[in-house]
Amino acid sequence: MTSRTPAAPAYRRMSVEDRRSQLLTSALTLFAQRAPEDVSLDDVAEAAGVSRPLVYRYFPGGKQQLYETALRSAADELELCFAEPESGPPTERISRMLDRYLVFVDGHATGFSALLRGGSVAETSRTTSIVDEVRRAAAEQILVHLGGDRPGLRLRMLVRVWIAAVEAASLIWLDEGRRPAAPELRDWLLDQLIATLAATAAGDPDTAGRLDALLLLEHPDGPAGRLAHALLPTARRTAGQG
Amino acid sequence: MTSRTPAAPAYRRMSVEDRRSQLLTSALTLFAQRAPEDVSLDDVAEAAGVSRPLVYRYFPGGKQQLYETALRSAADELELCFAEPESGPPTERISRMLDRYLVFVDGHATGFSALLRGGSVAETSRTTSIVDEVRRAAAEQILVHLGGDRPGLRLRMLVRVWIAAVEAASLIWLDEGRRPAAPELRDWLLDQLIATLAATAAGDPDTAGRLDALLLLEHPDGPAGRLAHALLPTARRTAGQG
Repeated sequence: MTSRTPAAPAYRRMSVEDRRSQLLTSALTLFAQRAPEDVSLDDVAEAAGVSRPLVYRYFPGGKQQLYETALRSAADELELCFAEPESGPPTERISRMLDRYLVFVDGHATGFSALLRGGSVAETSRTTSIVDEVRRAAAEQILVHLGGDRPGLRLRMLVRVWIAAVEAASLIWLDEGRRPAAPELRDWLLDQLIATLAATAAGDPDTAGRLDALLLLEHPDGPAGRLAHALLPTARRTAGQG
Repeated sequence: MTSRTPAAPAYRRMSVEDRRSQLLTSALTLFAQRAPEDVSLDDVAEAAGVSRPLVYRYFPGGKQQLYETALRSAADELELCFAEPESGPPTERISRMLDRYLVFVDGHATGFSALLRGGSVAETSRTTSIVDEVRRAAAEQILVHLGGDRPGLRLRMLVRVWIAAVEAASLIWLDEGRRPAAPELRDWLLDQLIATLAATAAGDPDTAGRLDALLLLEHPDGPAGRLAHALLPTARRTAGQG
């Protein structure tokens, strides 16, 4: 064992890459706790234990550049939530995506809210396009699992609209003190997707064909089977076949 | 018959209220066609056929005040879409709300998109709160028709999430060149509401009780009955009772 130095020097020497990533982590932590307009470069310097000029050396564009880079890195992390192999029941794949997404929302609450609520002083057309990029990536991934090749207009709309519903539900969830519990919220969002898929299939042959193919991959007691079972009595009664 | 004057004077004398409302109408027309940052006070003056100083006399706060006042007036108009008497089948009431809402979206396309897309330079915390006010008003109105007294957490979340879905669908609809046709979009959005209501009722006794009461008010061949009928074969098969 080597002997320890008595105290760490105030500015530990780091590689350029390590220092950059340390500054970004500090910035992300702050942006996750407060709205962008309430985070100053001094705050980031203090959180990282470095001087303000050092932060400027790495981000000459100042707070705007730091914010955009932090956002980019958060967006990359968020996009990773949607990576899912194409095997197993589709509802289970999407359920796992939702689990990872809700962990992200939970861990980046303030930054996530500020980003989606918009109107923040630090928001630029650039940041909006980062959010839209994530949305496009999410839609593409979900369509891989639901739609296969060349999904129709209605199914593409459905997925984009469902993503907006998931975003709204996450914001409301944060706002309501994270009620209901995350697994319950996940199941509810998944049920909404299954129900709107079925409702869309009722009027759109393209979606109907894809839904039939998807249902063949499901377990009888999986989310789709459970929901169908729970819905049947009401559906029969409403259709006058009760 | 009195004889006509040969030409109208360049600045017709108007009452203060008429002039104000004329300026707002010109501003709203411009904001409906272009993003707020692409509308200048000169444009508004030109569209109204008046001088720039006259616009300033009515809106001393300049473009920001004009934008916010125009937004306020559009928000009031939008809120009127949600007024609906509490009689008849609930799906028909919401269908009429959606019809009026889609007419509004169609007529205010650019302004509506800019408003909801956010990130516009003219957007302030004040404008965001106007949008949120409209959302709250819409949710309250819809809950009157769906929920009656003191709706539970899940039903309130469902309505707020559905409103977000409707907003997203409207933006995508504008973006896709207003495809599908408005009545088809309206029926699809209504089907989504019925389907998510039923899916939520499957796991939430409060929503289930309210849904049962609602279904008693529906015509057997109304939207709920038609959707239930169309969904039954898939639901039976998926539940293993096909």
